[in-house]
Amino acid sequence: MYELGVVHRKVDRPDPADVEALAPFGASTVHEAMGRTGLMRPYISPVYTGARLCGPAVTVLLQPGDNWMMHVAIEQLRPGDVLVAACTTECEDGFFGDLLATSARARGALGLVIDGGVRDVADLREMDFPVFSRAISSKGTVKATLGSVNVPVICANARVRPGDVVVADADGVVVVPVERVAEVAAAARRREENEAAKRERLAAGELGLDMYGMRGPLEEAGLRYVD
Amino acid sequence: MYELGVVHRKVDRPDPADVEALAPFGASTVHEAMGRTGLMRPYISPVYTGARLCGPAVTVLLQPGDNWMMHVAIEQLRPGDVLVAACTTECEDGFFGDLLATSARARGALGLVIDGGVRDVADLREMDFPVFSRAISSKGTVKATLGSVNVPVICANARVRPGDVVVADADGVVVVPVERVAEVAAAARRREENEAAKRERLAAGELGLDMYGMRGPLEEAGLRYVD
Amino acid sequence: MYELGVVHRKVDRPDPADVEALAPFGASTVHEAMGRTGLMRPYISPVYTGARLCGPAVTVLLQPGDNWMMHVAIEQLRPGDVLVAACTTECEDGFFGDLLATSARARGALGLVIDGGVRDVADLREMDFPVFSRAISSKGTVKATLGSVNVPVICANARVRPGDVVVADADGVVVVPVERVAEVAAAARRREENEAAKRERLAAGELGLDMYGMRGPLEEAGLRYVD
Amino acid sequence: MYELGVVHRKVDRPDPADVEALAPFGASTVHEAMGRTGLMRPYISPVYTGARLCGPAVTVLLQPGDNWMMHVAIEQLRPGDVLVAACTTECEDGFFGDLLATSARARGALGLVIDGGVRDVADLREMDFPVFSRAISSKGTVKATLGSVNVPVICANARVRPGDVVVADADGVVVVPVERVAEVAAAARRREENEAAKRERLAAGELGLDMYGMRGPLEEAGLRYVD
Amino acid sequence: MYELGVVHRKVDRPDPADVEALAPFGASTVHEAMGRTGLMRPYISPVYTGARLCGPAVTVLLQPGDNWMMHVAIEQLRPGDVLVAACTTECEDGFFGDLLATSARARGALGLVIDGGVRDVADLREMDFPVFSRAISSKGTVKATLGSVNVPVICANARVRPGDVVVADADGVVVVPVERVAEVAAAARRREENEAAKRERLAAGELGLDMYGMRGPLEEAGLRYVD
Amino acid sequence: MYELGVVHRKVDRPDPADVEALAPFGASTVHEAMGRTGLMRPYISPVYTGARLCGPAVTVLLQPGDNWMMHVAIEQLRPGDVLVAACTTECEDGFFGDLLATSARARGALGLVIDGGVRDVADLREMDFPVFSRAISSKGTVKATLGSVNVPVICANARVRPGDVVVADADGVVVVPVERVAEVAAAARRREENEAAKRERLAAGELGLDMYGMRGPLEEAGLRYVD
Repeated sequence: MYELGVVHRKVDRPDPADVEALAPFGASTVHEAMGRTGLMRPYISPVYTGARLCGPAVTVLLQPGDNWMMHVAIEQLRPGDVLVAACTTECEDGFFGDLLATSARARGALGLVIDGGVRDVADLREMDFPVFSRAISSKGTVKATLGSVNVPVICANARVRPGDVVVADADGVVVVPVERVAEVAAAARRREENEAAKRERLAAGELGLDMYGMRGPLEEAGLRYVD
Repeated sequence: MYELGVVHRKVDRPDPADVEALAPFGASTVHEAMGRTGLMRPYISPVYTGARLCGPAVTVLLQPGDNWMMHVAIEQLRPGDVLVAACTTECEDGFFGDLLATSARARGALGLVIDGGVRDVADLREMDFPVFSRAISSKGTVKATLGSVNVPVICANARVRPGDVVVADADGVVVVPVERVAEVAAAARRREENEAAKRERLAAGELGLDMYGMRGPLEEAGLRYVD
Repeated sequence: MYELGVVHRKVDRPDPADVEALAPFGASTVHEAMGRTGLMRPYISPVYTGARLCGPAVTVLLQPGDNWMMHVAIEQLRPGDVLVAACTTECEDGFFGDLLATSARARGALGLVIDGGVRDVADLREMDFPVFSRAISSKGTVKATLGSVNVPVICANARVRPGDVVVADADGVVVVPVERVAEVAAAARRREENEAAKRERLAAGELGLDMYGMRGPLEEAGLRYVD
Repeated sequence: MYELGVVHRKVDRPDPADVEALAPFGASTVHEAMGRTGLMRPYISPVYTGARLCGPAVTVLLQPGDNWMMHVAIEQLRPGDVLVAACTTECEDGFFGDLLATSARARGALGLVIDGGVRDVADLREMDFPVFSRAISSKGTVKATLGSVNVPVICANARVRPGDVVVADADGVVVVPVERVAEVAAAARRREENEAAKRERLAAGELGLDMYGMRGPLEEAGLRYVD
Repeated sequence: MYELGVVHRKVDRPDPADVEALAPFGASTVHEAMGRTGLMRPYISPVYTGARLCGPAVTVLLQPGDNWMMHVAIEQLRPGDVLVAACTTECEDGFFGDLLATSARARGALGLVIDGGVRDVADLREMDFPVFSRAISSKGTVKATLGSVNVPVICANARVRPGDVVVADADGVVVVPVERVAEVAAAARRREENEAAKRERLAAGELGLDMYGMRGPLEEAGLRYVD
Repeated sequence: MYELGVVHRKVDRPDPADVEALAPFGASTVHEAMGRTGLMRPYISPVYTGARLCGPAVTVLLQPGDNWMMHVAIEQLRPGDVLVAACTTECEDGFFGDLLATSARARGALGLVIDGGVRDVADLREMDFPVFSRAISSKGTVKATLGSVNVPVICANARVRPGDVVVADADGVVVVPVERVAEVAAAARRREENEAAKRERLAAGELGLDMYGMRGPLEEAGLRYVD
């Protein structure tokens, strides 16, 4: 399904106002707001505590053990973008480190999500350059084989098209299709507001069983209480 | 072995004084004090650095992708309890998040041990609500299938009966049978006192080889020194 | 390939000045400086954030579930040494904890790299005794079977001879053959200096594509740009 | 929860007629007949194609890398028994091979289920001695530490008491409590008879949607068909 | 990205003649013929030796622990189709067994590819109904939550749209976009013919080094021979 | 520790008579005969049932996703050799398939052990060309980066020097140092003869407890029998 050896320079990015509206919400809230879709597999995790990001994707498809296309991808980054890297196979080598992070940041990029490995993680933490990866590895890569930039990729079992918005934090990574960013931001806001009210009631001691009206359905399903 | 669709309201909790006596000790010390039994598999880990807990278990048996019984279990929690969640199969979805943590804390619960996934981990860290889990995942769950509350469960290969005391920290999770809490607390104290003395001698440069009298047995076992 | 039941008292350690020259550099830099060799498998990770070490290895070969030889190895440690523990099989029990760390530190050892499990990790963090391990587990070990000390071992797929220098940080663990320490330290320094200059240019917005002269080779390889 | 250093000679085995009634059914059928309980984790698998067994358990609790108790357990085996081996920790060494299989068969045992490793698997296949294990490994074990025989054990996350019946085939391993063998055999028979009728109707082209009356509930749940 | 609760009845299947042209080739050949794209992650494997299939996909999106949609999907199968099942999360329960296989075969389906678990594998082998799965598990599933049928799914990190052709054998599973079936079949044929000639030359003792003209490029890359 | 870009043409192979003497014995027997050393990690497994081999190693060090050196290595193979392939990092791509097997066989090679992936496994089975690998994958590799041939490698955590003899079967893979082949073959023979006698006694019903004289040591260790 992948095109190889191609760089698409044009990306249909979402309205920056919509991205800004989405940015306050975490991955779990956004995942719920999307009807529980768009989630990457949970083997992708932040390389340091507190890392989080939200922005449109510039995608790069890598070959195993080869980070040539990273340099190609960086040229395509604009302020606010997130670099999303998939690989044609499972590879945990260190495709990305502090020099690439420096370069990506100079382009205004917010961070990286990669279904592969990264290195220089102490530097990434110090730079506060959020990276979400499959692995950490010192193993360097070569520059010998073409992949592609800004083609749709499958990253950790989720499809990411250039311009789709990626939301990542300690809970996981969610992909919001570019067409749905405004709608999902609104749904996330409603959900948070709704949860704020519930949180207060629960904190005051009300039970979920009562607040959500679960006692009836549980009894109907056959739940028995024994003393 | 499991009863499904049942909530046992009565839990034989240990004497609070015994739990208090046990609380200062970590999982490794308690595990040793119990004769090296009662340990969960080490794939259960704290969701934030510094999480630790000690308290009697309220158990809940979940179905994959379904957290309905969590709400049922929370009603059964009393101050000082630890919620222990097993699943009828391996499932890493996010069964528990900040709302359930708020509700559990309102009941006085200390924390959660779950052979499954959780979410809202940044909130859990901020609340300092200790959670020990198999996974972190944004994936939400449904409320459609009955499990049970306060039946004996197998959680991460350890058996936990309601009222058994769970001790968890960075090293792991140990289950102390309710009948043995006082005895294990006493043994843990003796062990710690014993170790404190040893620690001082080792810090002063004495070798374990001498302190434990190992040179003879090693020689007997055939150990050879070569220059 | 292993000798069992033998302790070699003599270790050909590198010149301390060479170790000192190598110490400022991280695992990824050293790995590159060695021509991308000597890396342990990335399943070895630090037990706390910020752990790092650099020093000559005293090696110990363990049997599964048995840490008897740890005590034997500690006697062979000299100031500045790193204990490197391999196991004859895959075992994630807690072979090492705060007492052994206390004893190793009393001998002047810098830390531990182990293809196995450790415990008391909260204490290790508090002591700032750097440990890089395969696992964390409360499970204690017995003292019943001989292994060896200061024989060449395979640890996490890398060969370590006594006296080889081990460099470990958040990125991974690299083994520098004792004969190459001075050379690798010099190469690491050149690499860092080289990278410092590149980092500045990248931070100023120059692209890797231009800095590394990649545009020609990429075009030759067939890369196409599409608008 | 484990007793260590104890051999219980008395096992409350089920009525042989009940075991015989259960024997024709596979693990999945028995698991269903028990209300979907009693299943071991699916990482236990047969060491050769076609292995299957059904019989009461003699349990053995092993220490990592140590098969001393295997010899103790074999003395406790009676004709028709299944040896069920748990370990106090995760260990994939080869605890069992063709000599132990020969000895177990001489006692009339049917086979082995082990949460650990085995070896000589070509011989086991040739002997048609069914073994279900976590791993295959040439690594031998020592005889140095006590475990127990015929205590309740947790094996691959399932509790097995001596005398409980173990049913294993290509689908998995299920544990039937000794008190429920007759009842579960009857339920399994009913289920199989019920399925035989269904299988015929499905083979003839009837849809599950109609046979199970699912169309109404699916519509109610909101399922939409689009052309 | 997923629609939930929808069944698309219309599938744009490829020309049967093109599928027939593709059918003789294995997954590795087809993967190469497609420019090394379209491969599922290698954790999907056949449940019995010799299983292979080639046909257009009817896709089904499942919820964890729930196989309700399997029954819905079966109605949409036509002769020659392959059922491709993805799950909204990682779940290894037994979503599919001999009854569903009987029903799918009655509809003319060739087999199943599932990013989840299956059961009754001895029956599947006996029926010679090829199944490629992530896991084998006796654990049954419920019928409580809607997924979708014939929406594009991500299965084991590969995108599958209804009508895309799936080629699976012992080497892996490859997805051929419906638009490319004829072209890929032709490329696969050319590749096989080309390989047949090479195989003969290699079997006769010619070296790949010579046949592929590698000696020059290797020398240029710096390869040194040492005696 | 690795040399890169070098092919050593000279290999110190063992005396063929010694290899022949070793060939009848399986991996577990040889592992025991070597004092339980030399075993690869058990994640290496045969790609078809019944695969086994014994012969001196020609080693090849690969780069991830690159099988260029395979062609270089094949030229160095002589009749009776086994190709042993390590990789500088973890990579499960299909480095080897039926064409390379055809070429290796034309050189007289017996088979392959690889810490990586292979493909065309149905062909390998049909050819009865024994391959022991970490993975099976259709993913092809490139020919772009140099590794080495006939340097010592670490393969699945075991060190293999060119000429060392590799023994592989269903139980695992063991490496016998070239200097020890005759000695290990003799020890293996003694062990097998010894085991044959034991097997007969065990088959006749004698217990290991009596045959090995374990009752005394077990009692001394504190084993208690309970009725």
